[in-house]
Amino acid sequence: MRQKRIKTNMQTGDGKIGMAIHGGAGTIARGKMTPEMERDLRAGLQHALTAGHEILKNGGSSLDAVVASVRVMEDDPLFNAGKGAVFTSAGTHEMDAAIMDGKTLKAGAVGGLRRVRNPISLARAVMEDSPHVMFVGEGAELFAKQIGAELVDEEYFYTEERWHALQRVQKAEAAARASGKEFAVSDQDRHGTIGAVALDRAGNLAAATSTGGNTNKRPGRLGDTPIIGAGTYANNQTCAMSATGDGEYFMRLVAGHEISALMEHRAMPLERAAQTVIAKITDLGGAGGLIAIDKDGNISLPFNTAGMYRGHVNSTGQAVIEIYK
Amino acid sequence: MRQKRIKTNMQTGDGKIGMAIHGGAGTIARGKMTPEMERDLRAGLQHALTAGHEILKNGGSSLDAVVASVRVMEDDPLFNAGKGAVFTSAGTHEMDAAIMDGKTLKAGAVGGLRRVRNPISLARAVMEDSPHVMFVGEGAELFAKQIGAELVDEEYFYTEERWHALQRVQKAEAAARASGKEFAVSDQDRHGTIGAVALDRAGNLAAATSTGGNTNKRPGRLGDTPIIGAGTYANNQTCAMSATGDGEYFMRLVAGHEISALMEHRAMPLERAAQTVIAKITDLGGAGGLIAIDKDGNISLPFNTAGMYRGHVNSTGQAVIEIYK
Repeated sequence: MRQKRIKTNMQTGDGKIGMAIHGGAGTIARGKMTPEMERDLRAGLQHALTAGHEILKNGGSSLDAVVASVRVMEDDPLFNAGKGAVFTSAGTHEMDAAIMDGKTLKAGAVGGLRRVRNPISLARAVMEDSPHVMFVGEGAELFAKQIGAELVDEEYFYTEERWHALQRVQKAEAAARASGKEFAVSDQDRHGTIGAVALDRAGNLAAATSTGGNTNKRPGRLGDTPIIGAGTYANNQTCAMSATGDGEYFMRLVAGHEISALMEHRAMPLERAAQTVIAKITDLGGAGGLIAIDKDGNISLPFNTAGMYRGHVNSTGQAVIEIYK
Repeated sequence: MRQKRIKTNMQTGDGKIGMAIHGGAGTIARGKMTPEMERDLRAGLQHALTAGHEILKNGGSSLDAVVASVRVMEDDPLFNAGKGAVFTSAGTHEMDAAIMDGKTLKAGAVGGLRRVRNPISLARAVMEDSPHVMFVGEGAELFAKQIGAELVDEEYFYTEERWHALQRVQKAEAAARASGKEFAVSDQDRHGTIGAVALDRAGNLAAATSTGGNTNKRPGRLGDTPIIGAGTYANNQTCAMSATGDGEYFMRLVAGHEISALMEHRAMPLERAAQTVIAKITDLGGAGGLIAIDKDGNISLPFNTAGMYRGHVNSTGQAVIEIYK
């Protein structure tokens, strides 16, 4: 594989390519992580990264690459999106996703899906096959039916681990209520949004994000994932970004667009712009992280939590998978 | 009233106040406007403007002022929000609203409401009485019930004029489909989002927007109104803004936050920043307008359509109501 990769790069080295993915940020306690879990998570991230990178290497578009990576994670029960989506307080699943094309500033977003197998593909269909940017709830599922998106029974999204997480969170919440303390869900049960950003050989940037939200979330709550400019943003003039963490803070700061604005209007390099926004999230009291790539292929992966499941690969073809700081 | 106003201003002239409202932008053809309609619309705008301005004059908060103005328009069948909300393609109503507090950057947004009488008040409750920023659909209505928001039967939102507009648009769309032409809804039936922005004596900015969306819109479609940073934004460091028009373009440009970013990062005055963003909307092919006020009380009301229902009042107490360019 390594040889093939280098050869491909040499053959068509006219435009830089690169991509980054995340599988969620939070207090990822080393003590609670078994070697098997870590191995499986790293393998899942590697699989997702490779799926997108192969497309970029072969001259494919950044849009195709981010969708391919996100779909792999949506189909993997280890990640909180698609198959592995967490449960709402009502014991249901409500999934959100968004995609943005940095070349055209076209975007597609969906929220509150209950039966769409791959939310990111529906978001792409909203962008490409409708004059709209965003559909939510039953209307979004109606659109899914009309365009022939793959629908599954709600049981498809049942996983034992997520169900236990719901019981754990609801029990902890009830105990906190009984003792009059403020309830705080553990990070382990909280952050799990996934996403991908990519730069293709033509110089086009794209971003994609998909999530099941937070365990025990109230039905109807939307976070930053499907909000263009907050948890998902792409602009060929600046960068592509995808966020994970306390969505409300990313929404209030319009985090994705703020990184782009710092680059465009203040001429900040990507890394400084991304770090500046994470510092603002911290100041406001929020926890989370983000992945971003700029038009020159620079990659930034800042987070203010103990860890963030992440992977990236630049134009040298060297793939890196990381979990902790 | 005028005397009282002047007196109040003199008594507490330590901080400037000001506010602006809009009742939608579009091709408002003078020929189709009867003197009676114009009189009623101007009276409705004046009523809404006064409701908010009275609060500011008496030392009240910008948040209270924008909610008061928007509620007046939500209760007035002439405007496309609340009572006068347009019909979806399914013959239903789906209303969206958002509010933002420029002092704290806290925000609340709701989408796809069907039975909430005053969507802007529910948006404010999301901001103040929940840890979240956004609720949509059934989950939003469940939250409305839990906090005791005023719910009404769906028939409350029936107005003969909006029903006829739906028939007109659906007929025109069917005719366009039959002749193979692209369908374009007339602006008269299209734009109608309402909103308000205000600066209070304490120097706090606030923005509020509320809408029934577009006549004949697909169920589940969300526009820019409930998207923080797109159709609604407020930040004490820069400005408060509320948009109306082709929501998708305001979403793709993250229009509200872009105005703020141009002011913060490029030190642009409000008027130039607002005009710059409307020019970008025009370049991308979108139609619409916005209202904005900055921390010094400057007001900007740009639009690229033939008209925009609007009103504003600055610290001199002089109220202005306008429709055409």
